[in-house]
Amino acid sequence: MHEKHNKFMKEAIKEAEKSLKEGGIPIGSVLVKDGKIVGRGHNRLLQRESAILHGEMDCIENSGRLNGADYRKCTLYTTLFPCIMCTGMVFLYKIPRVVIGESETLKGPEEFLKDNGVEVINLGMEECRLLLENYIKENSEIWEKELERIGYSTDL
Amino acid sequence: MHEKHNKFMKEAIKEAEKSLKEGGIPIGSVLVKDGKIVGRGHNRLLQRESAILHGEMDCIENSGRLNGADYRKCTLYTTLFPCIMCTGMVFLYKIPRVVIGESETLKGPEEFLKDNGVEVINLGMEECRLLLENYIKENSEIWEKELERIGYSTDL
Repeated sequence: MHEKHNKFMKEAIKEAEKSLKEGGIPIGSVLVKDGKIVGRGHNRLLQRESAILHGEMDCIENSGRLNGADYRKCTLYTTLFPCIMCTGMVFLYKIPRVVIGESETLKGPEEFLKDNGVEVINLGMEECRLLLENYIKENSEIWEKELERIGYSTDL
Repeated sequence: MHEKHNKFMKEAIKEAEKSLKEGGIPIGSVLVKDGKIVGRGHNRLLQRESAILHGEMDCIENSGRLNGADYRKCTLYTTLFPCIMCTGMVFLYKIPRVVIGESETLKGPEEFLKDNGVEVINLGMEECRLLLENYIKENSEIWEKELERIGYSTDL
């Protein structure tokens, strides 16, 4: 099972690396249905001066408009734990499973996802953590600004 | 107080009407800070074949990237009760107040917003309700498809 998840997480990491090359924050995501990637995306907050294009949101947007029955078969892979906005998107489309690269760099609403019936698989991948950690070390001012915008705390 | 809210809701309605003219779903939104509109947007699901551009998301995107201190002074006006994704966005940026045109056509997570400290003011405006109701009557297939995508129920 983890082998399959690792394979798709590698694709999410490729998206994160794409963001990094564009000068963006290295967080990536893929949406998988019936063992196939149906959409991929990465954080574009900096590239697009966007307030909403987190990796998961970009991914769902790039997946096109699926049928409800299809969303309900999907697994969302993301290199970092989803924030509360992306969690809301998961609830909206009733995506049943989220596979996460790591949740150490930034905490997400894990209990809230689980309490609402979403299966959460945290791979705790060092590769995901180091990718973002190294970015933060080299871009601490940008990162601090991002945290200031969302008044980051571990509460939600 | 309601006079001020009505004034800004009129602007959100203008956005909803803009969407209608574009062939989209008539839901609109404005973001207000210190008594001034800092961003406006409308539902673009149909126009952009988008999965994420609800009125509120389009509005926050069009507002540009504000400082955290500014988001915390904002009021989000929306002609229809926000869905769980848009509610997540309100939580992400810690927007303290949401003013709603109506919540009869589609229920939203009202208790969830309130329980997390967001002030919710529901104007119950017939104008907002009729705008969307008439659209639904004339475009029932489109509307049913939208509901199917999100597996709409009144639960969340």
